[in-house]
Amino acid sequence: MSQDERAKRHFAEELDRLKQRLLTMGGLAEERVRLAVRGLVERDPDVMASVIAGDHEINRLQLEIDDRAFKLLALHQPMASDLRSIVAAVKINSDLERVGDLAVNIAEASQRYITHPQVKALVDIPRMAGLAQSMLHDALDAFVSRDLGAAQSVLDRDDTLDALKNQVFRELLTYMIGDPRTIEPSLDLILVSRHLERVGDHATNIAEDVIFIVAARDVRHHAADSS
Amino acid sequence: MSQDERAKRHFAEELDRLKQRLLTMGGLAEERVRLAVRGLVERDPDVMASVIAGDHEINRLQLEIDDRAFKLLALHQPMASDLRSIVAAVKINSDLERVGDLAVNIAEASQRYITHPQVKALVDIPRMAGLAQSMLHDALDAFVSRDLGAAQSVLDRDDTLDALKNQVFRELLTYMIGDPRTIEPSLDLILVSRHLERVGDHATNIAEDVIFIVAARDVRHHAADSS
Repeated sequence: MSQDERAKRHFAEELDRLKQRLLTMGGLAEERVRLAVRGLVERDPDVMASVIAGDHEINRLQLEIDDRAFKLLALHQPMASDLRSIVAAVKINSDLERVGDLAVNIAEASQRYITHPQVKALVDIPRMAGLAQSMLHDALDAFVSRDLGAAQSVLDRDDTLDALKNQVFRELLTYMIGDPRTIEPSLDLILVSRHLERVGDHATNIAEDVIFIVAARDVRHHAADSS
Repeated sequence: MSQDERAKRHFAEELDRLKQRLLTMGGLAEERVRLAVRGLVERDPDVMASVIAGDHEINRLQLEIDDRAFKLLALHQPMASDLRSIVAAVKINSDLERVGDLAVNIAEASQRYITHPQVKALVDIPRMAGLAQSMLHDALDAFVSRDLGAAQSVLDRDDTLDALKNQVFRELLTYMIGDPRTIEPSLDLILVSRHLERVGDHATNIAEDVIFIVAARDVRHHAADSS
């Protein structure tokens, strides 16, 4: 094997490793959202505390992934599609780190929420959480497998998430107007629904990056295209 | 001048141009936040509508900046500090585009808000807007001038923004509990304060990127460093 072939193989391995680490990071971020919402639904302060305490691993992984991406850019000077994949990895990495932050925000809102009597049985919020997690998961899979169809299906689900958020809002508003004692806890539920919507926004960002690198076209601003 | 020198000079000029375009983008994003909050304070639906309608320019600029960054990476294969600056530019570009989105969110909340009687004279929200804008402005200046002190001062101001957000929340809560008719408009003001907090978060992200590229150390996770 020539030196050039060895360098190419090394690059391909390192790029693959970068993608695997992003999947690990995505799995952690997803798990933290799942745990935060479980803490809320089960009114379990220990679960909430563990979400708030446990951000180190995701933060450490974020630094490692950025470092891997920079090394790939600096040492291998990749072109075209590989270049776009690596820069996308840096952006996806930021998105995933913020999903971790949103899990902390959900756990903090939940801590406040359980100091009040329960406003209502939670139905739509767990549904939002499941949807946001599946979007995140599928967006990362689409990145690794360069699957345009999977990326597009993530974008399509964002409207459903948005509709659920509005439904949560309308329903809680009626509780708040009916009984002022429900105002404070309802506000925290509204916040949780918005944090989950933002998890979906990050999944959408990732899916758009995938479409960008695979189809080499920019879906981010249809309006800008047609104007 | 040798071909190598010419290439270097061309690269330096293009990198400078990239930074100038980011400043333009930052100016647009800042202006849109300013306008959205002005629409709210003056209860002016035309101003709100103009913020909601006018996202094209910022979207077009985002595509242009990404394109410039990718060309610099692909054609010049920059090393070390330049490489970090260019990747940071791609990230900052995303941050600024989202600030533009937040301005739209503020304008949308304001449109709902003015369908109700005014809850109270707005004092803290314009103050939050001014602070968030100055953070954004200074973070971008710090990026262009590679000024660590300026970047650090952006990070310091984030706590003030957070304290103002909590103050807005506490005050509006008393209105909502006192009079259910204020619940719906108060919710929109709370949302606006959170959108402004997120503008500050984006400024913080940019300032952290500046510290990362200038000091070549990662300030993003103190916890991860010391663990």
